[in-house]
Amino acid sequence: MDKILMGPQTLIYPMPALLVGANVDDKPNFMAVGWCGIANAEPPMISVAIRPHRYTHRGIRQNLTFSVNVPSTDMVRETDYCGLTSGSKVNKVEACRFRVFYGKLDNAPLIEQCPINLECKVMHILDLGSHSLIVGRIEETHISESCLTGGKPDVSKIKPLIYITAPAHQYQALGEVIAKAFSIGEELKARE
Amino acid sequence: MDKILMGPQTLIYPMPALLVGANVDDKPNFMAVGWCGIANAEPPMISVAIRPHRYTHRGIRQNLTFSVNVPSTDMVRETDYCGLTSGSKVNKVEACRFRVFYGKLDNAPLIEQCPINLECKVMHILDLGSHSLIVGRIEETHISESCLTGGKPDVSKIKPLIYITAPAHQYQALGEVIAKAFSIGEELKARE
Repeated sequence: MDKILMGPQTLIYPMPALLVGANVDDKPNFMAVGWCGIANAEPPMISVAIRPHRYTHRGIRQNLTFSVNVPSTDMVRETDYCGLTSGSKVNKVEACRFRVFYGKLDNAPLIEQCPINLECKVMHILDLGSHSLIVGRIEETHISESCLTGGKPDVSKIKPLIYITAPAHQYQALGEVIAKAFSIGEELKARE
Repeated sequence: MDKILMGPQTLIYPMPALLVGANVDDKPNFMAVGWCGIANAEPPMISVAIRPHRYTHRGIRQNLTFSVNVPSTDMVRETDYCGLTSGSKVNKVEACRFRVFYGKLDNAPLIEQCPINLECKVMHILDLGSHSLIVGRIEETHISESCLTGGKPDVSKIKPLIYITAPAHQYQALGEVIAKAFSIGEELKARE
């Protein structure tokens, strides 16, 4: 066996690079988040892990709502910028030239340029140590019509941005299709 | 604006395809999970969303431990198979020819063929509706020596498998490097 130990680590490859939005003191702000995950199917819920001192965290606590915006590869500059800077110091919406809109919730700001936008209501906040794990119920999903094929989301048009953690610290695109899910595994059924 | 509404949806692209392991009635079992996320940095924690009736869920409740194994693209058949079948009916370890080992925890089974293995202790279980969101503290991380470059994890050797949800239902590889993180966004600082 060729395994080595690395101690407790959050080594998981890969994570989608997302922009989490909240109104802070009634103004829209966005932060880059790699630590999110789907939490539930019915009703649809998502979790995001955010350090409590972050400016966006303040807005989420103020309104108990937030948004999750999926940027495409052509938004890599804006996505990275939103992770480098704090809304307490700069107006990220202006610097990134985001066109902000609102949906079903009045106070969860959405980015028009992102192909997918989720509006979320906070259900749970778990304080785990360095981060709060915020679980939100997805109230509405917006998708850019240009990213649909036959009325359905088309990942080859969405072109999501994947964040690769340390030591690579880089964004990558999706690569080749390896196999169909719920299908390729059937080949092993002969071994049962 | 070209947005259309799709109602509440768990549309998030992309997610890593992972194999979550647990001992069920003292025997190792693994399920494919796409719905996981990093939950905390210090101490390192991860969340996985699992339906309560799943066989693996029973093992997690029995031991309050689980493992997260990161498969590489060459394990796509085994990964998909672990999502198609239930450990209540088949012996997945045998069908997949997994070489199982244990680390710091006695009862969180790890797959030698997966380049990264996390051993986790359950900290929280949130029952959210269809799924339980299980938050585990990462107790140890194992990585295959063949996936290191200069002693550090190398994602180009790990070759993680990315699961793309409906309607594509497919596994993809990582693609081209788009930009360095914490770097490309600096270009927008001139606009502040």
